[in-house]
Amino acid sequence: MNSTATTALDVTILSDEAHDIASAITQQLASFDIETHSGDNAFSSNIRIQQIATSPKDIDPHKVSILLSDPDLAAEIIEQCDGLTWCQSTWAGNAPLLRANKRDYILTGLKGIFGKLMREYVFAYLLQHARNIPAFDVNQKAQPPRWKAEPRHPLHGQTLGILGIGSIGQSLIPVAHAFGMQVIGLSRNGAPVEGTEAVYTKASIIEFAQHADHIINLMPDTPETQNVISHELLHALKPHSILVNAGRGSAIDEDALITCLDKGTLAHAVLDVFRQEPLPRNHPFWAHPKVSITAHTAAESQPSDVASVFLKNAKRYLNNQPLHYQFDFDKGY
Amino acid sequence: MNSTATTALDVTILSDEAHDIASAITQQLASFDIETHSGDNAFSSNIRIQQIATSPKDIDPHKVSILLSDPDLAAEIIEQCDGLTWCQSTWAGNAPLLRANKRDYILTGLKGIFGKLMREYVFAYLLQHARNIPAFDVNQKAQPPRWKAEPRHPLHGQTLGILGIGSIGQSLIPVAHAFGMQVIGLSRNGAPVEGTEAVYTKASIIEFAQHADHIINLMPDTPETQNVISHELLHALKPHSILVNAGRGSAIDEDALITCLDKGTLAHAVLDVFRQEPLPRNHPFWAHPKVSITAHTAAESQPSDVASVFLKNAKRYLNNQPLHYQFDFDKGY
Repeated sequence: MNSTATTALDVTILSDEAHDIASAITQQLASFDIETHSGDNAFSSNIRIQQIATSPKDIDPHKVSILLSDPDLAAEIIEQCDGLTWCQSTWAGNAPLLRANKRDYILTGLKGIFGKLMREYVFAYLLQHARNIPAFDVNQKAQPPRWKAEPRHPLHGQTLGILGIGSIGQSLIPVAHAFGMQVIGLSRNGAPVEGTEAVYTKASIIEFAQHADHIINLMPDTPETQNVISHELLHALKPHSILVNAGRGSAIDEDALITCLDKGTLAHAVLDVFRQEPLPRNHPFWAHPKVSITAHTAAESQPSDVASVFLKNAKRYLNNQPLHYQFDFDKGY
Repeated sequence: MNSTATTALDVTILSDEAHDIASAITQQLASFDIETHSGDNAFSSNIRIQQIATSPKDIDPHKVSILLSDPDLAAEIIEQCDGLTWCQSTWAGNAPLLRANKRDYILTGLKGIFGKLMREYVFAYLLQHARNIPAFDVNQKAQPPRWKAEPRHPLHGQTLGILGIGSIGQSLIPVAHAFGMQVIGLSRNGAPVEGTEAVYTKASIIEFAQHADHIINLMPDTPETQNVISHELLHALKPHSILVNAGRGSAIDEDALITCLDKGTLAHAVLDVFRQEPLPRNHPFWAHPKVSITAHTAAESQPSDVASVFLKNAKRYLNNQPLHYQFDFDKGY
């Protein structure tokens, strides 16, 4: 190793999206240099992409020192990576690597980006209904096209109810406020959350639904959250209400949801997660006119997010600062 | 007149949407009383709807004391309304009434609501593209349906460029910030605007476009704004850029826009205003796959907005306070 070794970082990228992540890194490095006006000793020249692969069999594990990887793929080779010092995962959870025996390296997760993605997902669909985009689209495609003011239902003045108001749920609050909405939450302990009018618990979930115009489920999958979006809860909603489920599929009583959509108890359901994924082809949600389906993509990270979390950590690594989002192998999170 | 006359208000509603406005007033009055916990002397019992009509010929002008009206319809009878003290217009502009001879009454406009509506319009369409809703919809409707992560282009980190950054334009800023966007503006004098990174002028419009990811035109129709969205400006945009025109149709060089959309110089145009409205049936915008058309409805007020501005002013009227949004007949605004 020559004298520059301590200031350079050789990264192996192993991911389904390895090539997109590599381009995003290259692109972001270019703008890093522009922002910092740095020349020869630029940050970008210290980051060297050594191997890029979408499959573990295309990686030489003995050459790996820094690994940026999908944890399921990394798990297949990690025990042979004898020079590994740091693995930046492309996922938030890291079960496949936490199960492996190797523990003599730093493992960091992908965090701090999901709130940003979730708020865009939630408001994209709330606004699509608020502004009645589908009706304007139908008018545009009609023969002859129709110039017509379709009814709209502004968000301002309405109340957003967030089931599971943790860090991702809280990322919706500033956006809701910027649109002139009030926010209420529901959490396990009902502890106050800044920016909300009230926080309810499971015991007062019907009252929560009665006070909300639209509800967003972000609760994790626990025994307590099974079917919390029940027939009774759906009945407490309003004919203009939108339900967004981006938590877990098991939170919804599916039969009750279809019954209530058909009866007009609520206006529309936007579903990103399901009891079985991919959602089976013959599931009635697919063809229901009041259901919008996305493919567990609400807060799915983009290659640019992975690149940005990696580069921020890489800068810390080169400066000998502690890395963000480190996993503790003993605690398992 | 009996002793209650000074605390009651008889309103005549004359509007294309008179019946919807009347229901919105009734509905809002009910919640006013709930909010203020008032009983017999409730605000609602002091507001009496005297006449409701969609046509001036169904109104007895001699009975009119307070008029809530579309100004074009009001202009047809206003000179016979000898008992008129206050007219609340349902429009922001009031040219038809400002042209009439009668001036011995208070005329108030509809204001303070357009920013709220505009920000929902603009972000509904920006987010539709950011989240690629159309592609997920196509997948859902496919036979068999497709479970697939379509590419998305998050707004966070992007820059919103607002052409015409007055009060409506500025209402977009807090929302853009809540989504993690930067904002730049363009105005006649380039004076600094809080919350923007920079404000450009017509002289630096190409630089403005180069720094923006998406641009929103809200400029009024003046000789200076003709064709400002030129071929050169469109060429300074990016392949992922969305253009929203909710200012005036004359701001756009239409041929240049179609050429640039076809070439992929920008991704999509969302158009609410046109040189001729309704947009003629045979106009190429209607069928263009990269154009979304709305019917000059971006910031069109809803009956509930009209009701809410009227009731706030009615409360002030009953309390002998000066009304909001008064017109000065001499100044003409």
